Amino acid sequence: MYRIFCSKWFASGVSLTAGAGMGAFIMAAYTDSLNKKQNSIHDLLGRVPVIPIPSVEAATDLIPFQSGPVGTSRATAVMKYGFPSLSNVKSRESYVVSYDPRNKTALWVIEQLNNDSIHGTSDRKYCEFKEDDSVHVYHRATNADYKGSGFDRGHLAAAANHKWSQKAMDETFYLSNVSPQNPHLNQNAWNNLEKYCRSLTKHYLNVFVCTGPLYLPRQEPDGKKYVKYQVLGKNHVAVPTHFFKVVILEKQKGEVELRSYVMPNMPVDENIPLERFLVPVDSIERASGLLFVPNIMKRTNSFRTITAGSK
Amino acid sequence: MYRIFCSKWFASGVSLTAGAGMGAFIMAAYTDSLNKKQNSIHDLLGRVPVIPIPSVEAATDLIPFQSGPVGTSRATAVMKYGFPSLSNVKSRESYVVSYDPRNKTALWVIEQLNNDSIHGTSDRKYCEFKEDDSVHVYHRATNADYKGSGFDRGHLAAAANHKWSQKAMDETFYLSNVSPQNPHLNQNAWNNLEKYCRSLTKHYLNVFVCTGPLYLPRQEPDGKKYVKYQVLGKNHVAVPTHFFKVVILEKQKGEVELRSYVMPNMPVDENIPLERFLVPVDSIERASGLLFVPNIMKRTNSFRTITAGSK
Repeated sequence: MYRIFCSKWFASGVSLTAGAGMGAFIMAAYTDSLNKKQNSIHDLLGRVPVIPIPSVEAATDLIPFQSGPVGTSRATAVMKYGFPSLSNVKSRESYVVSYDPRNKTALWVIEQLNNDSIHGTSDRKYCEFKEDDSVHVYHRATNADYKGSGFDRGHLAAAANHKWSQKAMDETFYLSNVSPQNPHLNQNAWNNLEKYCRSLTKHYLNVFVCTGPLYLPRQEPDGKKYVKYQVLGKNHVAVPTHFFKVVILEKQKGEVELRSYVMPNMPVDENIPLERFLVPVDSIERASGLLFVPNIMKRTNSFRTITAGSK
Repeated sequence: MYRIFCSKWFASGVSLTAGAGMGAFIMAAYTDSLNKKQNSIHDLLGRVPVIPIPSVEAATDLIPFQSGPVGTSRATAVMKYGFPSLSNVKSRESYVVSYDPRNKTALWVIEQLNNDSIHGTSDRKYCEFKEDDSVHVYHRATNADYKGSGFDRGHLAAAANHKWSQKAMDETFYLSNVSPQNPHLNQNAWNNLEKYCRSLTKHYLNVFVCTGPLYLPRQEPDGKKYVKYQVLGKNHVAVPTHFFKVVILEKQKGEVELRSYVMPNMPVDENIPLERFLVPVDSIERASGLLFVPNIMKRTNSFRTITAGSK
């Protein structure tokens, strides 16, 4: 029995530090019945995304979505559980990204996976990593920044998640969807986590995946905590200390499950079970400056977080 | 003669690193005649702020401004030269702040100073530093985070800039308008820079001051560049490596001058002339992830940056 009904994680004050995400066997679940009364604003918004930050909530329906084969409806669907933040938000064919112009990489990227989106004839041999020219040149990462750095150009929204459309796959190669990633991590444990996310489409109606960098502090011998990360190239592209994935899983009955993972940006033994990297979502919310749970709670009456032991 | 007409700073590729802001005697000015044709969108926006980021430009007129004695019109006026970013933007009685929920301090704060705003009977003895309860508790700095840290709670929008209203002064004591600041810097050189900004109200019609933290990289012995900064307390409030002030000066004739300063977050000899801390604005734009010049160019035909030698 892996369901434990408790809300302690949401007020636990747990802080992620640089050792987080390694070996936590934690089990928690949370189910709540929300008051479903909706005021006229919420009725008006209907199926458009919910934004957690009060000061920009009114801007919800102004986010421009690109037209295309799936167009507005898909982008709207991708953002069903809300924007973790609303800054430099860009909508692509098959994912939505919020860009961090200070660190020259994304704050977060959200994708919606299902059986249709992960299958198709698209091939990454036709893809090339490219600058995102929708980002101001002062804040843009380039291939030259990564060259010779020893880091991979690690996809946040994974290329293989978007085989349904060559254009969709191509767009995952924008450097705004990329962070400097340890090559061993990228090609092994992280790749396994991406594969696992795709496999979840067999068991769930929809799989929403939000991926992003973390810059976690570490205590030094002087007893103080410091955030320290390398920057690459002349544009100073930040090398995250860790990466997170928050996976929102929709079941047939309208139930929502949440699994949140953190991996350090270093070689990780791929024999360690993925569930060892499950963390309480609030630790990601605190460290990243983002919010997930308040949005999700607006969309479901049945919500639980899974932090270990689940299949 | 301190006017040099050149645009090189805007494409110079200058990057700020941790040694920046110390002793640069640089002189540059830029004047340009813009095509003033305004399309219907711009006519519609009229006097509301211009936002530099295309994806959120349409949201311009949705930023909620607090009501009050000066209300909407003042907040709109404060933002005349646009939003450097549009994330977690909060409007106060006498300043506007964009909050950084990852670092638990502001991204930037903008104030508008003139002879009226800096005079009055308000007194900081009635003010206390306080949590900003409009910020989610996961992302909020508290007084406990600063206690015993050795850092001052350094105002970004300075208290003494808002003597016109006790409420306006009170609001500068929200910890969302505060960053951990070296006490010597706060009480000496930085204080002098704040006084200098107030003195400019004697010579200019309006003085817009945008202040914020920087987290600049430094090259280490391994030849690589790293960003490193301390974090305070259980909420991990980031200690900036540097602070910037971008000062937008309006003259009677509609001419705009720009002065941009960077000081390191360490003791600074107050005998060093303030102009030694002038830097090219694009170096702040690159390092901070913000944009100033594109907004300003939408508001004036006569614009120059002053980076040294000016009175």
